[in-house]
Amino acid sequence: MPTASDAAPPLLSALSGRRPATLPVWFMRQAGRSLPEYRAARKGVGMLESCLMPELAAEITLQPVRRHRVDAAIFFSDIMVPLKLAGVGVEIVPDVGPVVAEPARTASDIDRLTRLEPGDTTPITAAIELVTDELATVGSVEASWTPLIGFAGAPFTLAAYLVEGRPSRDHLAARALMHADPDSWRRLMAWCATISGHFLATQVDAGASAVQLFDSWAGSLTRADYAAHVAPHSRAALAAVEGRVPRIHFGTGTGHLLEEFAVGADAVGVDYRTPLDEAAARLPGVPLQGNLDPALLAAGDAALFAHLDDVLARGRSAPGHVVNLGHGVPPTTDPDVLTRLVERIHRAHAS
Amino acid sequence: MPTASDAAPPLLSALSGRRPATLPVWFMRQAGRSLPEYRAARKGVGMLESCLMPELAAEITLQPVRRHRVDAAIFFSDIMVPLKLAGVGVEIVPDVGPVVAEPARTASDIDRLTRLEPGDTTPITAAIELVTDELATVGSVEASWTPLIGFAGAPFTLAAYLVEGRPSRDHLAARALMHADPDSWRRLMAWCATISGHFLATQVDAGASAVQLFDSWAGSLTRADYAAHVAPHSRAALAAVEGRVPRIHFGTGTGHLLEEFAVGADAVGVDYRTPLDEAAARLPGVPLQGNLDPALLAAGDAALFAHLDDVLARGRSAPGHVVNLGHGVPPTTDPDVLTRLVERIHRAHAS
Repeated sequence: MPTASDAAPPLLSALSGRRPATLPVWFMRQAGRSLPEYRAARKGVGMLESCLMPELAAEITLQPVRRHRVDAAIFFSDIMVPLKLAGVGVEIVPDVGPVVAEPARTASDIDRLTRLEPGDTTPITAAIELVTDELATVGSVEASWTPLIGFAGAPFTLAAYLVEGRPSRDHLAARALMHADPDSWRRLMAWCATISGHFLATQVDAGASAVQLFDSWAGSLTRADYAAHVAPHSRAALAAVEGRVPRIHFGTGTGHLLEEFAVGADAVGVDYRTPLDEAAARLPGVPLQGNLDPALLAAGDAALFAHLDDVLARGRSAPGHVVNLGHGVPPTTDPDVLTRLVERIHRAHAS
Repeated sequence: MPTASDAAPPLLSALSGRRPATLPVWFMRQAGRSLPEYRAARKGVGMLESCLMPELAAEITLQPVRRHRVDAAIFFSDIMVPLKLAGVGVEIVPDVGPVVAEPARTASDIDRLTRLEPGDTTPITAAIELVTDELATVGSVEASWTPLIGFAGAPFTLAAYLVEGRPSRDHLAARALMHADPDSWRRLMAWCATISGHFLATQVDAGASAVQLFDSWAGSLTRADYAAHVAPHSRAALAAVEGRVPRIHFGTGTGHLLEEFAVGADAVGVDYRTPLDEAAARLPGVPLQGNLDPALLAAGDAALFAHLDDVLARGRSAPGHVVNLGHGVPPTTDPDVLTRLVERIHRAHAS
């Protein structure tokens, strides 16, 4: 009989549709500005630069595991990192977000862009090896080690930044291009899928035990446009690690796209707006991740824990449930709230 | 037998669930930056100031009716105008949006705020009288005059700005307050509903023939939160003009809230993400407004008109259909595209 510590970590059990004794939890953006140790580590270092410094990226990835005892590390990276590695001129401007030096608006812009190859991923591999070395010794009641989740932005999100040149609310230029010049759009998206898939595969090659493909902006699309002009490319990116590790697919404001998100993925992350029991009814057999409302993190423990109980109860409808937020940790979050939340989730019965 | 010109304008027929011979169309944000005559008229005049200069506000309201021959004017105003009239310190900062000098974050902030009374609406009344004087003589094939639609921001949108102090993506502070201190939240929302309802009633008193309540930010809410903490207040605002004129209720990203939006309203504006036939199936008997994707305005006439045909076909499922965008006119829109769109919609058969 194996000892408890030889079993699969709860995250991987839940992602394969089982109900481990302990409910697994991690938080999107857990490695980030809510932690004082993160702010100290990042002092004076630009966002994209920090992602490419292996020791720093590893340290930041590990901070929330050490502090909160979450059931997974999420690799500290940025949606724009694979673009930067490919040679795209991009920087993260404080209070603005990603800014692309030369937005790709025309067929010839896209021709030029899509000739770029995925760049040298040595710093990513090095960081992941440092992370997984430490995680091999960080266990829980059920397993002797903690998994690392790899991360990439989905092709539409990359394309939206490349076309718009900066964050936008409705991605009008990107969505207009999709209809005005579907061939160029397809070339752009196919390239983004290659870049995104390559970035996921790099992380799995280096030791990541799961991946999450995150589509920040897909919520701006109609379901018809998503299905016709976006989904095939997200599936191509996910296919880059098919059969190797569980693949979580997540987007915000994508309640109307859930069924599409489930195709080609092993689990679906659910935005806080869609109750998990509704999501489970729409996605039979699909493990779900989510979906605490980040706003509740600042509403006091009584309101937060009542909300948690509701989310956990609804999550029982899914074959596996990875507890998470329905969006990233707000930078202003008191980290002690997250630690208490993890403790409470670990004390809850998984089924 | 009445002549055609004595009949109700197509907008009002469609809003009462009939199918006029000509499909009515107007565009959210039709009075705005897409028009060169608007940019000329606004030169050197701040946004909120321009809303309170009766001749200027009337001129701007009328510009798109003259240019595009749309079937309704929408009163040129801003969501923040009723707050400014009540004495709240607010300004529209270019490239930022509305900024509130003293955000209302605590129970005592809210006490202070909610002692304010709706302010002097003389400039609103004066502007509307100028507008309706001209619209009385602007007719179509079916009617000898053109209706004016009054406009107000919904209580949640006002409250989100008041709590956050500026535009935000997820309205975390407002939504945290809702759960952390439901009593203060209720007082804040009740006050916002009074302000919003008063602003709608002012416009109807002065001659508006319909109103639209616009909830910019309700899409950030779960359906449960919307139903419990927001809907009663939006209904209170709409009740201020109940039985007097048709009331359109619209929000962006609110596909998951459509049924809630229909209660207490006479018609529902549908975001471009929800196909109109789906909306009609979910809201039997409810006239619908919408829902062209604004991104298509920049995609060329072929793609735009194919999209229009699809929207019109789906709109036939609704008892009445007011053609509009599923969000506001983007500032970069070529106004000639809008004019051609109106012509094409007017040539389409209404049923």
